[in-house]
Amino acid sequence: MQKWEVVEGNLASPRGFRGAAVAARIKKKHGELDLALLVSDAPAATAAGVFTTNLVAAAPVLVSRQNLAESRGRCRALLVNAGNANACTGRQGLHAARESTRAVAKLLNLTPAQVLVASTGVIGVPLNLSLVTSQLPELVARLSIENASAVARAIMTTDTFPKSCVLRSEAGGKPVYLAGIAKGSGMIHPRMATMLSFLTTDALVGPRTLQNLLRAAVDVSFNCITVDGDTSTNDTVLAWASGVAGAGVRPGNASWAWFLEGLTELCRNLARMIARDGEGATKLILVEVEGARKPSDAERVARAIANSPLVKTAVAGSDPNWGRILCAAGYSGAVFDPNKVDIRVNNLLLCRDGVDAGFDEAAARKELDRKEVVLRLDLHQGSATAHIWTCDLTHGYITINASYRT
Amino acid sequence: MQKWEVVEGNLASPRGFRGAAVAARIKKKHGELDLALLVSDAPAATAAGVFTTNLVAAAPVLVSRQNLAESRGRCRALLVNAGNANACTGRQGLHAARESTRAVAKLLNLTPAQVLVASTGVIGVPLNLSLVTSQLPELVARLSIENASAVARAIMTTDTFPKSCVLRSEAGGKPVYLAGIAKGSGMIHPRMATMLSFLTTDALVGPRTLQNLLRAAVDVSFNCITVDGDTSTNDTVLAWASGVAGAGVRPGNASWAWFLEGLTELCRNLARMIARDGEGATKLILVEVEGARKPSDAERVARAIANSPLVKTAVAGSDPNWGRILCAAGYSGAVFDPNKVDIRVNNLLLCRDGVDAGFDEAAARKELDRKEVVLRLDLHQGSATAHIWTCDLTHGYITINASYRT
Repeated sequence: MQKWEVVEGNLASPRGFRGAAVAARIKKKHGELDLALLVSDAPAATAAGVFTTNLVAAAPVLVSRQNLAESRGRCRALLVNAGNANACTGRQGLHAARESTRAVAKLLNLTPAQVLVASTGVIGVPLNLSLVTSQLPELVARLSIENASAVARAIMTTDTFPKSCVLRSEAGGKPVYLAGIAKGSGMIHPRMATMLSFLTTDALVGPRTLQNLLRAAVDVSFNCITVDGDTSTNDTVLAWASGVAGAGVRPGNASWAWFLEGLTELCRNLARMIARDGEGATKLILVEVEGARKPSDAERVARAIANSPLVKTAVAGSDPNWGRILCAAGYSGAVFDPNKVDIRVNNLLLCRDGVDAGFDEAAARKELDRKEVVLRLDLHQGSATAHIWTCDLTHGYITINASYRT
Repeated sequence: MQKWEVVEGNLASPRGFRGAAVAARIKKKHGELDLALLVSDAPAATAAGVFTTNLVAAAPVLVSRQNLAESRGRCRALLVNAGNANACTGRQGLHAARESTRAVAKLLNLTPAQVLVASTGVIGVPLNLSLVTSQLPELVARLSIENASAVARAIMTTDTFPKSCVLRSEAGGKPVYLAGIAKGSGMIHPRMATMLSFLTTDALVGPRTLQNLLRAAVDVSFNCITVDGDTSTNDTVLAWASGVAGAGVRPGNASWAWFLEGLTELCRNLARMIARDGEGATKLILVEVEGARKPSDAERVARAIANSPLVKTAVAGSDPNWGRILCAAGYSGAVFDPNKVDIRVNNLLLCRDGVDAGFDEAAARKELDRKEVVLRLDLHQGSATAHIWTCDLTHGYITINASYRT
């Protein structure tokens, strides 16, 4: 089996998928794509999902979780809309989500449990079901490999660019594809900046195996980004495997590591795009922690730094304020000796053994002026590491979020 | 014993104290007060302290903790500076803090362990000890009851107003005073926005009793404010009791509740001033949670809401975005049924049973336009409550913090 490489394409580059999107007027702006359908044409296709941990889960999350369980991972279609999150909408919201799955199932000759739903947009406003159902025949009629490209645009809210990635490899001399799209937006988990990602492959993966692989890949990719520490009511990652390419992936088989590598790379690429496109963000920040006593310490330090408004604002201003970084590490709950910490921006040493390393201010500013900034801490306590992607905190974030709803 | 009432005065309104401040050029701006001395003239005076929980504690925190322990709560003087936090400054910083206590002790005929120190300002930059020591004779010469007023101004950094409060009561027909000053700044615990507070009383309180009372008062006041969730390296609350007024305060005595009530009111008044003066803040926000199953659930919900950049930004924009509030409650880790939650802004119902209450948009905006906004959640799960003060998140925060250091 070969390495995975990035190629051109869309969600239907893996064989056995079609997609389409329409403008259903769920978004306020006339003519913007806001409703999309993705279908797996292979009858034996499998599906898996990872959802928000927020106690306040949106109706589509509740319905998709249930349908994945009821169909035992044999879901074949996804209906997704932007412009309305269908969250905090009570029974009415659940009704709208369930009726959507029924309507899609009827048109595609599936059972309702084989249809998954996802939504992103305003919280607390009822979703107008008729806007959705009236567009379904048109959506089904448009389903094609080419039209699957439009799905990535239809799920955007405050995203400034569509996020899509396709990987290609070979198994047994035959091509195998992995594809994915995502939407994030400013912060990572805000009410309207839900993180959604949908992944497809033509490899042959059983539903339980796909679920385990997806969980593993999400843990080291989407779960390693943060924009403002808010966890949305709608976060959803879904994956489908059509099996059309053969290339069976099973636990205990060499195919497992090969496929997980591709899936992880796919998720990481999409996660990085989300962090880079954080609301108002001008810079992608990678927080790398090494030398921790144990992995949980490394992760605590990385998350505290990545979530600190003071650190993120300093990066926005290209201020080499390493004291804020050390301060955030200090309140993270991790155990370490502050007098042993080294801090670097990219490869420039700012702090050695917990005190100023005597760096050149202009050089440090130059490093912080880059579009991608790596904040590296070495705790010198052990060998555990962690990394988290985030973005800087700017005036743009305030402007976007002070009056998004209205 | 009577109720406590707010009166005019300063840190030396409680008898047995003197204070003074000078401009020592530790702050960059010429002529700004930045070094202050507070002295308790009563030989039997007691002292207590509560310090940052940050693992990365500044040199003055380390030295003050040690001196409080070594003197067994018999400290008599405080030297405090703004403009430099003396944090992340290693051995050199510890040396500067210790030498400061020695120099003050010599001038006041005290032991070094009887002198406490506190600093706020830039992290990671060595404190110029000679700027401090050269001003000490002048500071001592200026010590007076009147000059104690200047201490509140000398500890300001990005604070927009000095924070001071004096309470008066009577015990046995004689007046008893409690006084306090504080500095916060934008967010609450940033590197330069350290929270400092210094309290004085002329009641007669033993060192251990004073420590227990201070801890209890801090828990329901300063520990109930947040600006950006960052915990500073320098946070310090110190209290002195001169005993000059008599009015002994002892555990198991009616005086205990009376004194704790006054001390708590004093701390709450100062804490509210800090939250109101958050960096860039235009509004004071009180998050009130009731109906939780247990106190820890109530506090989790209140803190998650008060720390959510999305909620704080929505309040800044007077956007009645109750979905963000419910969303933050949902990821707080508290256990509750989202379908039972009511959310109010001041007394206006926005969300009932987890869904839109059908409120009037203009009326909601009017409530959010107030200078003090109360966000009230009723979880309808039990009887536990919690409250947290915070402020809105505005463009001002970004401007202040993007390039504070340089």
